[in-house]
Amino acid sequence: MSRSVTILGAGLVGSLLAVILSKKGYKVTIYERRPDMRSARIAAGRSINLAVSVRGWNALEIAGIKEAIEPIAIPMFGRSLHMPDGSAAYQQYGKNNEAIYSVSRGELNKKLMTVAEEAGATIFFDHRCTHVNVHTNELTFQHEDKEVKVQADLLFGADGAFSALRSGYVTADRVDASQFYLAHGYKELTIPPAEDGGFRLAKEALHIWPRHNYMLIALPNTDGSFTCTLFFPFEGAEASFAALKSDADVQAFFLKNFPDAVELMPTLLEDFRNNPTASLITTRIFPWHMGDKSALIGDAAHAIVPFYGQGMNAGFEDCTVLLGLMDEYGDDWEKILGAYEQKRKCNGDAVGELAIMNFVEMRDKVADPVFLERKRLEKELGKMFPEQFISIYEMVSFSHTPYDTVMKCIKAQDALLERVMNVPNLKTIFETAAFGDQLKDWVAAYHTSVKDLDFGPAARK
Amino acid sequence: MSRSVTILGAGLVGSLLAVILSKKGYKVTIYERRPDMRSARIAAGRSINLAVSVRGWNALEIAGIKEAIEPIAIPMFGRSLHMPDGSAAYQQYGKNNEAIYSVSRGELNKKLMTVAEEAGATIFFDHRCTHVNVHTNELTFQHEDKEVKVQADLLFGADGAFSALRSGYVTADRVDASQFYLAHGYKELTIPPAEDGGFRLAKEALHIWPRHNYMLIALPNTDGSFTCTLFFPFEGAEASFAALKSDADVQAFFLKNFPDAVELMPTLLEDFRNNPTASLITTRIFPWHMGDKSALIGDAAHAIVPFYGQGMNAGFEDCTVLLGLMDEYGDDWEKILGAYEQKRKCNGDAVGELAIMNFVEMRDKVADPVFLERKRLEKELGKMFPEQFISIYEMVSFSHTPYDTVMKCIKAQDALLERVMNVPNLKTIFETAAFGDQLKDWVAAYHTSVKDLDFGPAARK
Repeated sequence: MSRSVTILGAGLVGSLLAVILSKKGYKVTIYERRPDMRSARIAAGRSINLAVSVRGWNALEIAGIKEAIEPIAIPMFGRSLHMPDGSAAYQQYGKNNEAIYSVSRGELNKKLMTVAEEAGATIFFDHRCTHVNVHTNELTFQHEDKEVKVQADLLFGADGAFSALRSGYVTADRVDASQFYLAHGYKELTIPPAEDGGFRLAKEALHIWPRHNYMLIALPNTDGSFTCTLFFPFEGAEASFAALKSDADVQAFFLKNFPDAVELMPTLLEDFRNNPTASLITTRIFPWHMGDKSALIGDAAHAIVPFYGQGMNAGFEDCTVLLGLMDEYGDDWEKILGAYEQKRKCNGDAVGELAIMNFVEMRDKVADPVFLERKRLEKELGKMFPEQFISIYEMVSFSHTPYDTVMKCIKAQDALLERVMNVPNLKTIFETAAFGDQLKDWVAAYHTSVKDLDFGPAARK
Repeated sequence: MSRSVTILGAGLVGSLLAVILSKKGYKVTIYERRPDMRSARIAAGRSINLAVSVRGWNALEIAGIKEAIEPIAIPMFGRSLHMPDGSAAYQQYGKNNEAIYSVSRGELNKKLMTVAEEAGATIFFDHRCTHVNVHTNELTFQHEDKEVKVQADLLFGADGAFSALRSGYVTADRVDASQFYLAHGYKELTIPPAEDGGFRLAKEALHIWPRHNYMLIALPNTDGSFTCTLFFPFEGAEASFAALKSDADVQAFFLKNFPDAVELMPTLLEDFRNNPTASLITTRIFPWHMGDKSALIGDAAHAIVPFYGQGMNAGFEDCTVLLGLMDEYGDDWEKILGAYEQKRKCNGDAVGELAIMNFVEMRDKVADPVFLERKRLEKELGKMFPEQFISIYEMVSFSHTPYDTVMKCIKAQDALLERVMNVPNLKTIFETAAFGDQLKDWVAAYHTSVKDLDFGPAARK
């Protein structure tokens, strides 16, 4: 007889996991802290649009809802960069016209909940988990004014960065854990649709206003609006949340630093005043599981900052890896959870690092001409040596390469690109046969140095 | 009117802090989880003897109990190393016959509690803090079968590695925190007094049986016994707690690896069976304080492993630094706590690192002839250049040099010692005038590279 499964959290990962486990024949119960978002109004201002990339689509396909989501997903084929002088630049993401897809977190979550219920899962809303005994799997919830006790059999914590199951783990003996916050916070702002209902900025791009130590970004929504997010230092005398005290401060700051954006944002001052300033946490923990009793998944295991658009994609990949291990080990959950931890822990840590690195790239490096040149070179190398060279961004967003492998490729790839970019008169000689031979050797050397790493399954189209 | 102070924890640091604050005129109340150790029997097996060094004595002097503790403190002037072949070596700690002092944690703690009460503090025992609201300073305690609520004014968490105040901080926004455990645990064992009541090993030394990946140590007690601690991997096929399953395993292992110790340990098997296997945690957190409301101190702010004998000394130094800031800023607690954090956070982190580094030194390097040679050279340099060269061990144990400064000196000192030890025929030429000039230059260069660091006040005798 198969075990019953309790999942904490009906967010994206908890709901997807419920779909997968229900389809495998497990009796699944989810406990969710919040009310049912399908009937309640969602608080605005803390969503950050999702960017679904290959890992996410793969999981949605497995859950059988890829087709349902495609109509509400807007492809973004590259970055549109808005410079301080009003000029713009464009960086295509992939060499084969790949895209990442802007999707409403709320719509996707609602859909996943419904599919989970259709697959047989039960969701209890308004149940806030206040305590987990990680040795006995006894759960305590606050529900309305009552305390509710639940005895879990197999337990998953899919309850996010501030997971109750993670808190239980942290107090157990010999559990390593860390949490740290960026010095930057974020605030959501809005660019509404144009009067004719169209988009006020190019629709199929992720817009960035890189300003070295801070940035504004904008992702398209299906209704013609853009959700903007300002990533900004909390503290500091000039450019910081602490420094912008009045409406006048905000207005002056935006006019000076984002003049082309500010004219598209009629509700800037209200949004800035009313939307919360939220912080950005990265967490790590080890172990990820306790025997055959429980495991952490998604943000509960590896909360990351949003700059690579990989939080949800990584959490979904946790689920698909778990599914693969169920196929392999049947219902031997001690083995499944052990192998899950062994496969995913290093990748959870790696994607956390990648996300922080991409913050620096997005807010600072993308505005640098040398960096733009490097991006063009990456694309060129990818086209010339498609079997041997895939850029880091492509590995993360358009492949199933384990994040940990991606991290291991960075240094070798940096060395290769630096080598090429240091060649004098590169543009002039790039097309010569002699340089072509040289390049072939260099790329081959790079490829040799990384080729034995685990690149995972090829990405499906 | 001065504020009232609530301290969580009547351990060594909480009690000392109560003495200091009471003497400053504050009304101090301590809540302690355990029963009063002055009337209850203390559980054996988890103490690790304390080694009081200069920072600790300084604080005890301020508390006015240095004279009361001296009679129960046994000086240890160096390390006595017990090699696997039965041979022994001795490393003196200081060049001026300085010692660290073995003191019973229980006796010291009892004395400090009594002095705190005499100074006016109130201690409530059997009060386990279950929740701290860090925004309001509302405390919840479990006392017998009742829940007790307390409203604190100025609050200190001196409640150790698993501090309730620290837990409150960790759930607050933008608090960075980490905890990690060594792969090694420890177990206490005993060498009883000789039949004539004397010591079975040299009394005035810290005894170490270094065995590369693990070690046994022994510290003298006033009754003629030694408290031994085995630091040993939890897991592993051969030398680990997991591998020693039966009495026969333990007996065989000790006979093979600690033959000279085993004959001094008649209760080895009982001790091994009955004493708990405990883990070794290191923690970090930031911030250490919240406005003028609360602060963490001692292990609650920086739990460290015991290998430098600095845990209590560092916690006591937190208290003396705080006292200095009270002298400087009066009752402006926002300023006091801000400056306390600014001065101590970096040192708490540094002593945590030093403690882990010393584990490697104690269990592995001390058995290495090259390392022993280096120790002799350190002593020589200290005698030849007393103003310019003080060894790392001496800085930590026999001075008030901030731990963070010690960390900064390590690299420069390593470079100097390596330089000297790499000189061919060092022993032959060491006394020559030419080499003397060379050495003077090298030491001067070392001293120049570190002399602008903050070395703190000179140590009192």
